[in-house]
Formats: sequence, C-alpha cells, structure tokens
Amino acid sequence: MAGAILASKLGVDVLLVGDEESILRELDGFELPVVHAPDVIGMGDDPASGLREKPRSSIVTCARLVRSGDAAGFVSAGSTGAAMAAAAILVGRVAGVLRPTIATVFPTLGTPTVVLDSGANPDVKPEHLVQFGEMGAALSETYFQVAKARVGLLNIGEEKGKGRQLEREAYALLEQAPINFVGNLEGRDIALDKADVLVTDGFTGNVFLKATEGVAALLTQLLMEAISGASPESLAEILPLLEPVGERLDYETTGGAHLLGVKGVVVIAHGSSTRRAVSNALQMAHEGAERGLVERIAACITLG
Amino acid sequence: MAGAILASKLGVDVLLVGDEESILRELDGFELPVVHAPDVIGMGDDPASGLREKPRSSIVTCARLVRSGDAAGFVSAGSTGAAMAAAAILVGRVAGVLRPTIATVFPTLGTPTVVLDSGANPDVKPEHLVQFGEMGAALSETYFQVAKARVGLLNIGEEKGKGRQLEREAYALLEQAPINFVGNLEGRDIALDKADVLVTDGFTGNVFLKATEGVAALLTQLLMEAISGASPESLAEILPLLEPVGERLDYETTGGAHLLGVKGVVVIAHGSSTRRAVSNALQMAHEGAERGLVERIAACITLG
Repeated sequence: MAGAILASKLGVDVLLVGDEESILRELDGFELPVVHAPDVIGMGDDPASGLREKPRSSIVTCARLVRSGDAAGFVSAGSTGAAMAAAAILVGRVAGVLRPTIATVFPTLGTPTVVLDSGANPDVKPEHLVQFGEMGAALSETYFQVAKARVGLLNIGEEKGKGRQLEREAYALLEQAPINFVGNLEGRDIALDKADVLVTDGFTGNVFLKATEGVAALLTQLLMEAISGASPESLAEILPLLEPVGERLDYETTGGAHLLGVKGVVVIAHGSSTRRAVSNALQMAHEGAERGLVERIAACITLG
Repeated sequence: MAGAILASKLGVDVLLVGDEESILRELDGFELPVVHAPDVIGMGDDPASGLREKPRSSIVTCARLVRSGDAAGFVSAGSTGAAMAAAAILVGRVAGVLRPTIATVFPTLGTPTVVLDSGANPDVKPEHLVQFGEMGAALSETYFQVAKARVGLLNIGEEKGKGRQLEREAYALLEQAPINFVGNLEGRDIALDKADVLVTDGFTGNVFLKATEGVAALLTQLLMEAISGASPESLAEILPLLEPVGERLDYETTGGAHLLGVKGVVVIAHGSSTRRAVSNALQMAHEGAERGLVERIAACITLG
C-alpha cells in the first residue's frame, strides 16, 4: 500500500483493487480510488479454475478494468500464473500475437537487457521466438531510449548453425524479421552490452535468470564474509562504496517483469515486493501506457 | 608445458603428446617422456573428419594410448569437439553408456557441485538425464569424499510436474534410479548446497554455466570500479581479503571439465589454460585414475 501511495505522489494515476475494508484501513486517510474485490486467487490455486471460480478476485477485477478501458494496465504481486491467465483470457491478446511472454529487465554495464521469455512458455516453436524478439525490441525502445534495439538469440555458441533444431530454425526466421537481429549470443555476453534484447524459450530463460540470481547471491555472501575481517575504519569507507552496486543489481530498481502481447500494460512484481519495488512497478506500467507500449507491439508483430 | 612439469613434480605420471621437437625445446632439459604427434586438429576443423584425416594428431594419439592401456586418461586444452569425438570413437564408451557427457565442477559455499551435461548433448532424452545423474554422482563421490551424492534435476520450479515434457519424464525415471535423487532444483539453488550433482540437457547446462560466468565477470567489474575510489590504506587491507574469493571461484582451481562415460579419465581444459590450470587438470586426471572413476561409472550405470 505504501508503494501505491508513493507512486501516486509521483504522478501515477493509481486505482487500488482488493478488499475495500483492508485497503481503506491501510490507506489510513490517504485518498486513492478503490475497487472492491474481496476474493483472492492464491499461489497454490490452479490459475485457470481460479479465474472461473473467483470472479470477484482482485486479479479478475483488474483484468476487467483493463478490458473495459477503465485502466490502462495492472500491476500484480500475486500468483504469476493467475496474472498471466487473467491477462491472456480476460484482457485478450494483441492481434497476431501467438503467445504472450514474460520479459525481465536485466541490469548490465550499459543499457539494461530485456530477457524473454522468462518462464511463461517452456516449450516454444521458432516463430514464437521471432515474436518474442519483436515484442522485446518494442519494450526496450519504449523504456530505454533505444532507437533500434539489437536483438540476440541466446545460444551455446556464436556461429550460425549452433544450438538445437529450435535455435537453428529461429535463427533463419530472425534474419528475415524486420528487427535489428545481431545473431547468437552466449550467457557470458550478458555483461558485455552486445544486445538490448535476448531471446530464448521460457525454460532456458528462467534457468538463465535464476542462475544469475544464484551466483549474485553466492558472490555477495563470499564477499561479505571475506571483508568482515577488515578494520572498522576500512569497512566504514568500503561499505558505502559497495551500496550503489547492490542498488544497480537489485530487482527492485526495475520493480517487476512485463507480460507482453496482451491489450494492456501488465507488470508482474515479486510477491515479496517492498514499497519501492511496488512504486517502481506502478511507474513502469504508467510509463508503458503513456509511451504506447501496447500500440508499439501491435505495430511490430509479424508471423501471426 | 610448465603445467606438465609442475604436475610431474607433484607426483603425476605425465606423458607428453605432440610435436616432439617443440616439446623438447620447451622442456629445456627437464626429463619427461614424449610421444611424437606432429598434426593438430584445430578449433575450426570438423572433429569427425579431423580424426580421419589427421591420425598423427596429438588428440588421436592420446586416445590410442588410452585404448592400448599405455595411458589411463588424457588432458586436452585443444578443440573440445575433437577431444569428445576421439574419446567416444577411439577410446570407446563404457558398456551401457548411451551418451558420453561433459561434467563441470562448480564452486559453491559447500562441496563443489557437478553440473552435467555442460554442452556435449544439446538434445537429450529422459533416460540420458538419468545416466548423467549416475555418472555425475560417481564423479562427485570419486573426488569430493561424498558418501552418497545428492542428485538434483535442474528445473523451473521445485514441485514435481514442473518443466517440459523432458523434465517430467526424467523426474519419474530419476525417482526409480538407484541414486540419491533429491528432486527439482532451480538455478538460484546452486549457491545453497542443496545437491552435489545438477542434471540437465547440454543446451540448458551450457547456458547455465556461461550465465554464471557472465554475472561473476559483471559483478567483479562493478565491484572493482566501486572500490577504486577508496583510500590506499583501505585498499591495501581489503584487496588481499578478496583474493581468496577470486581463487575459490576460479575455474583454474578445478582445471577443467570431465568427459564421462568413456573408458579412460578425460579432462578437457580451457584453451587459455595457465600453468596452474594445466597442472590441476593433470592432477585431477591422475586422481580419477587412482580412485577408479571409470570403474565406478561402469558399476553404476543403468538403463543402457
């Protein structure tokens, strides 16, 4: 709730959806419009049956508000599956989009890289990867002032012909697509700013992103243990210098992942989102709507 | 060459294979046995045709020495494809092994984790994953004093039923296999010492490992930039504390990846290997032979 208040103060037109009584209690006098939605689709519920059985859940209500045009998009920190299902079924896909996709914004030394699919589509066909490239480019160009986003294919070698049948066929299609395709990229290239968009299937993308989380956590722990033996004077000097690094790598800075290919700006925030993360997610959704993210996607999609 | 001399001094029975004149020049009087093999299969050559067309190459000669029993294994810092092809075709597979696999030893907070397949088999079947688990467990138990290695399946969620068709079928087979299967693991678990062995297909494994390299490089660079502004006194105290972290994460500590499932101990070192990396690779091959790695694999393989 604190995140919504913060975003509202920063100029985002926020509509709160959920149990009205709880929301009003948490708002504690701060005025924001509320739409009452008493039901909850939990993390353990099956998303599709949750949509059917809980029409008064917050996620179904959010999707209906987008469908009716009363909202430009929604941010959810609840079940990712339910948010995806609600967006795909109730908000609806952009014309031509075969599969809505989850895109994660990954911090690098340069412009952030959009990695997609991050887990919505574990099994894909080559044409899906092409559309992921097109939608990822639209996201990169919308948020990061990139003129013509460089799109790379995540692979296990740089040469054409590398990878599985999926990558070989997708490579040929990506070369033909009206995007700035820069070829195969390897996982280690993520830091080197070789592309603005990294395309892969949802299984590989999810493993890739979680691997980077795991290593970042491992390194941070090893580092902190290593320097814990230093003198208080050195620590007092070093620790504040390290803070901006953590800041830069923190998912809270981007606030969430985008669900692309539906007729609204949908941001999926972490369940454990802090005030800042929620506020950032709301700001991203706001910016996406202002800058016409959905229209850009509608304009660039091919192979539908 | 310096790596071979170092390993020899540490008790490894080294046989050098390559162009005799060059080797003797580099040995500069140090006495090690040399087997003359003047040809080279380059990084750009097709591995299979290289084997046919260059029977006097160092890799073919190494494989023949293992086949004839004159060597227990070999270390190669050349073309991975050529080393794999030579080992699989000339040395031969262990009875029952469907696919030889490349296993990488990954540093963690606890016992190192064996990740396989790391890139030899981009497209696999569920039964291959089971054998990877068996071979990985043998490797872990051989080198890391693990009594009964915990084997996890790399997946995009912890619950049974997650992942692609491949993971769902492999999960069922792994549960039946005579190994200590601990279920699905996610990429972020790598740091948490939840398993000794992490099983996946060669595409995902390769992406996973390179992603961790990329993030480690990114973090190291951000970190060094961040602390570069500190006072000389603090740096003099902090930098030596950080060295063991780099050491621990350095691939040179393990020296290389293992090719498992062939009738010899085969270690594939980085092409850019330093003296220490080569020496470590030779020591690992030596230890693997002493401790009966190949025999352990032969004893544990099922589903052949």
